[in-house]
Amino acid sequence: MKLYSFFRSSAAYRVRIALNLKGLSYETIPVHLTKQGGQQFSETYRHLNPTQLVPTLIDNGLAIGQSVAILEYLEETHPEPALLPADAAGRARVRAIMQSIACDIHPLNNLRVLKYLKHELGVGNEQRDDWYRHWIAIGLEAVESMLANSGDTGLFCHGDTPGLADALLVPQMANARRLGCDENAIPTIVRIDKACMELEAFRLAAPDNQPDAEV
Amino acid sequence: MKLYSFFRSSAAYRVRIALNLKGLSYETIPVHLTKQGGQQFSETYRHLNPTQLVPTLIDNGLAIGQSVAILEYLEETHPEPALLPADAAGRARVRAIMQSIACDIHPLNNLRVLKYLKHELGVGNEQRDDWYRHWIAIGLEAVESMLANSGDTGLFCHGDTPGLADALLVPQMANARRLGCDENAIPTIVRIDKACMELEAFRLAAPDNQPDAEV
Repeated sequence: MKLYSFFRSSAAYRVRIALNLKGLSYETIPVHLTKQGGQQFSETYRHLNPTQLVPTLIDNGLAIGQSVAILEYLEETHPEPALLPADAAGRARVRAIMQSIACDIHPLNNLRVLKYLKHELGVGNEQRDDWYRHWIAIGLEAVESMLANSGDTGLFCHGDTPGLADALLVPQMANARRLGCDENAIPTIVRIDKACMELEAFRLAAPDNQPDAEV
Repeated sequence: MKLYSFFRSSAAYRVRIALNLKGLSYETIPVHLTKQGGQQFSETYRHLNPTQLVPTLIDNGLAIGQSVAILEYLEETHPEPALLPADAAGRARVRAIMQSIACDIHPLNNLRVLKYLKHELGVGNEQRDDWYRHWIAIGLEAVESMLANSGDTGLFCHGDTPGLADALLVPQMANARRLGCDENAIPTIVRIDKACMELEAFRLAAPDNQPDAEV
């Protein structure tokens, strides 16, 4: 498998975690999101992924975009170890946590949105960072509530083994820390993030450990 | 089943389509997003759904938030008629289309985001509508490219029977029309949207046909 990835992309980071948890080896093809006006806008990449966003997974000639679609695909094609629970209720709970991060937080803080705020709406750096932290705070507090008030939460988001919800949570927490978000309101998330980062699968997927990382 | 819904919410609209396609009856519990400062912020609703967003599906005492998580849950618990293809590649394709709408377009045009633009960033109505149309245009053109360049596209997004990708596309197109977006660049989407609206399952799910619709 090949993964078109950018070291700092949290959507690519999710997929790297899942590939590692499943013990699948892959080749990283870096797509630099800011150099050369953004390599994701090249004709070649656009042909693979019309959204012009990373990541894209290539498996047996099949190109799959959208990190959550890739995670579901990996779960279906490489079921062991399972990263979704076996029961429908548990799967719904994990997917609700996933979507709360993938839809309610991440898209609002994407590079292209921050650019639009700056260039089209004339938003300054301070207001831009407030925007960034606002959506993280609202989104992660909702996820905290889902986690803190459920007996399904264990060492990880769902039970005592890491899974797809954790694969979305950890990259989002990395962004939260980078922007200096307040961690006091989300103690369960902080605890789970810490447990994840003790695992090699998560550590090796981190931005700093990618072949395209910038020192 | 019970669906906490707001007639104009496109996320609730997706779920109504899927429930209708599967022939599942349900009770609508309206959550008005603007009256009383927003009923989604009530203590009762927050307890059901910590994201304070609609929809929420209640099935056998289980409360599920996030429309995409609900769609996957319905597909797993009521597999017939299937709304996802049987093969992993087809499922990945449909989910990539779903996420392109659920992540790349819809969250940017959500009510709470439009409110933030107005109240926190002082964005005027014209600039707000430009923002709205900008993300729809970029997002739907990517989806158009996925649909127009694939032999998997049929009368509907995937083959000749309606499915989950269509359940996301139709509500997004309703928003695009409401904002007067340019439809010339997305002929395949326009064609599929039209085919969907000929089906009762889609028509009955439309905002105007909901018990809480405002004339």
